[in-house]
Amino acid sequence: MPITLNRHSSIPLYRQLVNALREDIVSGALAANYKLPPERELAERLGVNRATVLQAYQQLKSEGLIASHVGRGTFVCASDERQGTAPPWQILFSDYSNRFTYHDIAAADQAQQAPDAIDFATGSQNPADIPDDLLRNVSIRAFESADFQSTQESPIEGFPQLRELLADHMTQRGVRCDADNVMVLSGAEQGLDLCVRAFVNPGDCVLVEQSTFFPALQAFRSADARVIGVPIDEQGMRTDLLDGYCKRFHPKLIFTIPTFQNPSGATMPLRRRRELVETAMRYQCLVIEDDPYGELCYSKRSAGTIGAGGFMDVGGGGVTGGIAGASSSPRRPRELTPLKGMENAGYVIYLSTFSKTVTPGLRTGWLVADSHVIARIAALRRMIDQHTSSSSQLICMELLSNGRIGRHIERLCEIYGHRRDLMLDAMRRYAPDGMHWSTPMGGYYLWARLPDGLRAARLLDDARHAGVTFMPGDMFAVDEDDSSHIRLNFVRPDSQLIEPGVKLLCGTIAEAVQGASGHSSER
Amino acid sequence: MPITLNRHSSIPLYRQLVNALREDIVSGALAANYKLPPERELAERLGVNRATVLQAYQQLKSEGLIASHVGRGTFVCASDERQGTAPPWQILFSDYSNRFTYHDIAAADQAQQAPDAIDFATGSQNPADIPDDLLRNVSIRAFESADFQSTQESPIEGFPQLRELLADHMTQRGVRCDADNVMVLSGAEQGLDLCVRAFVNPGDCVLVEQSTFFPALQAFRSADARVIGVPIDEQGMRTDLLDGYCKRFHPKLIFTIPTFQNPSGATMPLRRRRELVETAMRYQCLVIEDDPYGELCYSKRSAGTIGAGGFMDVGGGGVTGGIAGASSSPRRPRELTPLKGMENAGYVIYLSTFSKTVTPGLRTGWLVADSHVIARIAALRRMIDQHTSSSSQLICMELLSNGRIGRHIERLCEIYGHRRDLMLDAMRRYAPDGMHWSTPMGGYYLWARLPDGLRAARLLDDARHAGVTFMPGDMFAVDEDDSSHIRLNFVRPDSQLIEPGVKLLCGTIAEAVQGASGHSSER
Repeated sequence: MPITLNRHSSIPLYRQLVNALREDIVSGALAANYKLPPERELAERLGVNRATVLQAYQQLKSEGLIASHVGRGTFVCASDERQGTAPPWQILFSDYSNRFTYHDIAAADQAQQAPDAIDFATGSQNPADIPDDLLRNVSIRAFESADFQSTQESPIEGFPQLRELLADHMTQRGVRCDADNVMVLSGAEQGLDLCVRAFVNPGDCVLVEQSTFFPALQAFRSADARVIGVPIDEQGMRTDLLDGYCKRFHPKLIFTIPTFQNPSGATMPLRRRRELVETAMRYQCLVIEDDPYGELCYSKRSAGTIGAGGFMDVGGGGVTGGIAGASSSPRRPRELTPLKGMENAGYVIYLSTFSKTVTPGLRTGWLVADSHVIARIAALRRMIDQHTSSSSQLICMELLSNGRIGRHIERLCEIYGHRRDLMLDAMRRYAPDGMHWSTPMGGYYLWARLPDGLRAARLLDDARHAGVTFMPGDMFAVDEDDSSHIRLNFVRPDSQLIEPGVKLLCGTIAEAVQGASGHSSER
Repeated sequence: MPITLNRHSSIPLYRQLVNALREDIVSGALAANYKLPPERELAERLGVNRATVLQAYQQLKSEGLIASHVGRGTFVCASDERQGTAPPWQILFSDYSNRFTYHDIAAADQAQQAPDAIDFATGSQNPADIPDDLLRNVSIRAFESADFQSTQESPIEGFPQLRELLADHMTQRGVRCDADNVMVLSGAEQGLDLCVRAFVNPGDCVLVEQSTFFPALQAFRSADARVIGVPIDEQGMRTDLLDGYCKRFHPKLIFTIPTFQNPSGATMPLRRRRELVETAMRYQCLVIEDDPYGELCYSKRSAGTIGAGGFMDVGGGGVTGGIAGASSSPRRPRELTPLKGMENAGYVIYLSTFSKTVTPGLRTGWLVADSHVIARIAALRRMIDQHTSSSSQLICMELLSNGRIGRHIERLCEIYGHRRDLMLDAMRRYAPDGMHWSTPMGGYYLWARLPDGLRAARLLDDARHAGVTFMPGDMFAVDEDDSSHIRLNFVRPDSQLIEPGVKLLCGTIAEAVQGASGHSSER
């Protein structure tokens, strides 16, 4: 049983071991009833951690290739024991799909599944904020006048009229573009998946914010990319470090959420935006700008334990009423200019969606990019899902017409800005010493650092027990666990539940602090 | 400039040439301003068609790597000519996306882009057959009663009510299944893409019908699978050869369109279906059953130069009115039982869609499979597009309710069966000697073999010039070009254009036959 493991491979050691043993078993090189070495012994022989061998054996057991008998050891199963009528799923699934780390998803689900708790965890809107009447009206209007025969097949890039409307919408937001540069997507996440397929080779390096949207991490890792986290602070990605990261890692892509970042709520100021785009261009590295929250901009607040970057207002007057996406003269802070609005060469690929501002059910997002990107992605999509549902596209056209969506988002910003304030007030009132948090200027999330020594994941159980739930920072961390932060969605709960929710949460944290100090003084 | 092309590779010769030249240019082996050999000369040197070299040069020009100067020849561009401020796209695109063979798509587009010609080429419905009123009614009905707040997010697998309706629909079609075994897709093609991602590792073998739906070939090849074509005849895949193919190639997947196959129109009889499923199970190989046309079953015809498999009717009486998908006691030939209805172990993954029976614009299809498959694909989709558009799902629920879709398909079968008969009659009347064709019992396509010596791709230009268009068999061929067959979509044109279209086509073929014999007698 000579086995050679390659420490420099991107394939984890335990999977290399699984593959080697599986091949030996399936080929018959290891006969039925062959007794495998004990885990510890094999680990020593291969010079690996015992956990690696343990994990490999467990995988092979789940495939029915080996079995352990208590007190006797681990044996190769006879092939007739293996052959049931069911397909051998574990052997049939692709390596690619095996790279999807299910446990992260399970952890997210667990945080969200607490039906009676006050929900600061889930990353979507409160269903009550979905504009039911607006959607019903625009949908019926869209279908009353629809000509299904001429809309039977949308171009892959989307209906020209919708692309026009989106190009106008983006131009008003500071990204001058033509309809040709816009592609309609089935959600912004699809855009991410398509970019990965269009650009990422196994082993390519992708830079991301050190804590980020975890499906993005998943998308890059599933493509066997090397994902490197760039440190962040309250002004988002540390672009002063970016040149060094580019020099060292030669990234092909930088993935960033520059505005109201998920999970940190941070917004990159103009200077950092410039630095990011210039660095990317210098290293011929593409930038994927994910911007699901950019339009949800609330009025200025000066409070907060950690001072936010500070907005520079443009157009006179403070940012008072949120961004009017469809208004003709938007008053928006210059700081919020999308990266895509700062270059024309084609390095930035911009993604956005209606999921955070209208409803995720539409599954409609869009991409703004160079024509090379659009053409390549269209060629891929032709073999995948052709185009975004015509019915969703017809509804979105109505939504974008006559300033409807602008008025809706304006209303939403008032409600959400108020909830943000409620949460900040409650945090100031109830947070125990040693806790720090950001002052988000928009978006969904407040990012809080726990008092020293507390672990977010462990706290979650107590919090759920107390009746409140949040997302532990670990979920978003690239490299190592970030157990010191928690993400609180302040738009999700009903307004009147925010103060009691924060009170419960902070009470739980305070108890944990006392428990920890009590525990440590006992030692 | 030593270049070696591999005639046995699945990569087209022109792309091999592009890759070799690109590498030489980028590496500097071919210096700036190097004069490339004229197309004819290089073609002779390599022993390939001149068109191959032409296509390769064109591709390199579009990449900015070479340029032609009239009267002087073709030269390698200096690298500073290539370096603008634009990103170096050709270097940035992934190998995966480079594997998408654009020229095939261009060929398909070319066949379809003949606005004034009678269209037997395009693989979709006649827009006039899209049920405009039905779609408007069900859409408005769906949205009048829709509760957008509770339907803001569909489960990944689809709304439970739609999965129920689809499970009923499938059970009536001979596939007993629960809602749990059904997943709503954004088109059947997405199901194919997801299956590739869930199951195919680079180098895995996939068996397909020797001529097949070309996006499927594309999906498998993009995943670097080894795609092997199993011979077909007028009864579909030669399942008698399948054991040998499985023994030799150890396929992970068999992809098949058993009913009204695209492009051959062939339908596998029950015996072959059994043989396929049994062989797959014996070799622990999954089967993807693509069934977009299965419900479009027309009345029996005995005519045709090549005799079709011959249907065994079930339930008494001939197959007279098409399949009533939603009727309670469908009269359907036993031959049409989907493969998925013939096994319970989980080996068959069934895909279908509303694109061919209602409209492709809905982008809604479905998958019936073992719970392991559903779970794995849901985990992937969670990171891709979450779920199929809620609005499309709501519309499909209404379509499937109250037997609406059954009545619509029944009507469609009458129209399409009539068009099939018109085409068969016209073929019998006008086809020149030496031409053979199938008698499709359903679906969209008639598959015809040209008289000896004619090449479909070459004929296409003449036919378009004459005012009629078709899809050359080359488009669908796995291994080698199939230049002897053409695919005719008989449902696409208006009924009154079928006879004149066939007349024009057969006239063109007859002329080509004469031209060929004249040409050969001249030699």
